[in-house]
Amino acid sequence: MALLQIDGARLLAQIQAFGKIGALEGGGVCRLALTDADREGRDFVVAAMRGLGMQVHVDTIGNVIGMYAGQTEEAPVMIGSHIDTVATGGLYDGNYGVLSGLEVVAALKNAGLRLRRPIAVAFFTNEEGARFAPDMMGSHVYCGGMTAEEAHAQRGIDGSTVGEELARIGYLGKMQPGAIIPWRYIELHIEQGPVLELTQTQIGVVQGVQGIHWLKFTIHGTTNHAGTTPMNMRHDAGYAASRIAVFVREAALRHGESQRATVGRMELTPGLVNVIAGKAQMMVDMRNTDGAVLRQMQDDVLRFAQQAASEEGCTLEYEKPVQFMPVDFDAGVVELVQAQAQGLGLTTRKMPSGAGHDAQMLAHICPSGMIFVPSIRGLSHNVKERTKDEDLINGAQVLLGVVRHLAEMS
Amino acid sequence: MALLQIDGARLLAQIQAFGKIGALEGGGVCRLALTDADREGRDFVVAAMRGLGMQVHVDTIGNVIGMYAGQTEEAPVMIGSHIDTVATGGLYDGNYGVLSGLEVVAALKNAGLRLRRPIAVAFFTNEEGARFAPDMMGSHVYCGGMTAEEAHAQRGIDGSTVGEELARIGYLGKMQPGAIIPWRYIELHIEQGPVLELTQTQIGVVQGVQGIHWLKFTIHGTTNHAGTTPMNMRHDAGYAASRIAVFVREAALRHGESQRATVGRMELTPGLVNVIAGKAQMMVDMRNTDGAVLRQMQDDVLRFAQQAASEEGCTLEYEKPVQFMPVDFDAGVVELVQAQAQGLGLTTRKMPSGAGHDAQMLAHICPSGMIFVPSIRGLSHNVKERTKDEDLINGAQVLLGVVRHLAEMS
Repeated sequence: MALLQIDGARLLAQIQAFGKIGALEGGGVCRLALTDADREGRDFVVAAMRGLGMQVHVDTIGNVIGMYAGQTEEAPVMIGSHIDTVATGGLYDGNYGVLSGLEVVAALKNAGLRLRRPIAVAFFTNEEGARFAPDMMGSHVYCGGMTAEEAHAQRGIDGSTVGEELARIGYLGKMQPGAIIPWRYIELHIEQGPVLELTQTQIGVVQGVQGIHWLKFTIHGTTNHAGTTPMNMRHDAGYAASRIAVFVREAALRHGESQRATVGRMELTPGLVNVIAGKAQMMVDMRNTDGAVLRQMQDDVLRFAQQAASEEGCTLEYEKPVQFMPVDFDAGVVELVQAQAQGLGLTTRKMPSGAGHDAQMLAHICPSGMIFVPSIRGLSHNVKERTKDEDLINGAQVLLGVVRHLAEMS
Repeated sequence: MALLQIDGARLLAQIQAFGKIGALEGGGVCRLALTDADREGRDFVVAAMRGLGMQVHVDTIGNVIGMYAGQTEEAPVMIGSHIDTVATGGLYDGNYGVLSGLEVVAALKNAGLRLRRPIAVAFFTNEEGARFAPDMMGSHVYCGGMTAEEAHAQRGIDGSTVGEELARIGYLGKMQPGAIIPWRYIELHIEQGPVLELTQTQIGVVQGVQGIHWLKFTIHGTTNHAGTTPMNMRHDAGYAASRIAVFVREAALRHGESQRATVGRMELTPGLVNVIAGKAQMMVDMRNTDGAVLRQMQDDVLRFAQQAASEEGCTLEYEKPVQFMPVDFDAGVVELVQAQAQGLGLTTRKMPSGAGHDAQMLAHICPSGMIFVPSIRGLSHNVKERTKDEDLINGAQVLLGVVRHLAEMS
């Protein structure tokens, strides 16, 4: 195959133009799912798809799929990601993958190329989960993990429901989610972590997505006066919570380098300086590429939490609101990403994704993979999220090579 | 001296009647300082003072002192406490001491007794500090710890100032705070802790008030993605805060039985399950009757906090918003309380106060003491705050005996 180039300047200009939709003063973007800003973003992408001669499908959960016809009507190669952001998001998370998909199609179209298989460019509804739970909602529904009706009933942080908001912004489509099963799925994304930058690597070859387990603890103790209650008569929910948080770190280190564990949320009630906390709520986020180790880590934390609560004369309630097992991407797609990047002279590193992505849902219905580009200082979900222009262009070029290869496969 | 009895039924009826002012549905009282409910409470007490033939003085910080004349015009014996409550207070905290003071005067009056010295019954403005900082404001001003003008300028949780609110409710008096220096000061109060109940003691003979030191920590780390940031690259402010909270408990136990230490307030920012906390704020409340040990405890906590922050690559800021040293009550008053209680056949226990009280301010200007009665389950600052009727009556009877004795001293 002759080398086909994406138009880097055009891609960068599209990213900048798209970043004006929902732009925050001083930088960054707020384009929460199914808001007016999200509608404006959707309209932008749909117009671009139509401009490239793509046929646009909208399904009943608002996922949008643009189809660029191939020489056959075999199952398409799908390039996907999302265009919603967190409340203080950047210009790249999700959007970069979708706009690069359009750029791949534009490069093919400008070269007058039709590949064997159709190319689908998709963006999935509410990947972030910042307005409506759960996150990765659109791809989850697309892959059969929940029904569109269940998703429609979800109520957001502002009280509205997914169904109402989809209808209001005009993206309650008619297609059945999952109606188009891809031949292969590939997602280009910023790393959202520091590893590529620190190891001076240009392309991350993503082997899979870490499993994620969340534990939610509610510890019930006894509210009492901080000055008058002897230390040995306390049932201090806050103390038990702090012991658990310290244990979480120690246990993560014991479970090896691929284990992550974080207590980012802890709330003491009543939360007053001179009152012993009668209640503590906390969340533990645990991730690992190894499902067995992850499960062991969770068991250890749960056992310690029960012990710490009991030793303080407190009671412990727990929930397991998220229990995603690790996802391994398709070995063929992983090797293809590596080969394409190396063929372009780029440095590569095989790595897991620490964050969740639509690709982990699509992996349930077709062989899938991901391409990462470096994030400056590892920052994401942050208005300071940035990736160097040359890295953005490299990633899109790798994507084009991968897609071109996959779409010629029989 | 012949035994003079207080009228227990009358006292209990007064406590119940007073509890209707600012009553909460379902029990308890909200009579925040200088609100309309506080005015109503003040009017109630002032009317009762006038009914007992007492001369009423209001000072420029709104402290109210009713004087029951003695045979001489020597310095009075002052019975004092407060009538403001926290937002979810009970019927006894403060009010019990003031209403018992009125009952003492009523008993004397009904018996036709004038003692050598006048009896002053006082309630001090804003003891709780629940609407305006600092707490114990009225007695602090009365004893010269801050000026009335400084106190007037304090802005409350609702934006109003002490000076405006005093004028609005008609209690911006003319008397200079501290104009009446007591011969002795005595305060009757519920324990607000569990010790008397647990040791089945009827009267607490209060030897002093614990010193209170507060440390406020702000730990600055780096907000980052919980899934992508390796454990050894984290600057997790929440982890450092939890380590400090665990250390606080351990250090308190090491510093002996009289040491109390509590982390009742801890806030992580941004406080999301999947984001490493970039900031943590926490407060440490430390109390001890031994000022040297308290100072050592604070030094230990501060040193560990700096170490814990530093080991996590975080920075630590700290403030010392409260640094009260312990107060010892007058040995003569303490022994008198004990003797009077034992003379009535009541069980007694010498103990410190874990909570702050107006008496600790008055101790700076005259020999002072306190009498405690048991709190059921140690509950206070809680709508379930309760003390048994017979304990309430016992306490008032001890107060009468102590006052009668002091007021005959030359």
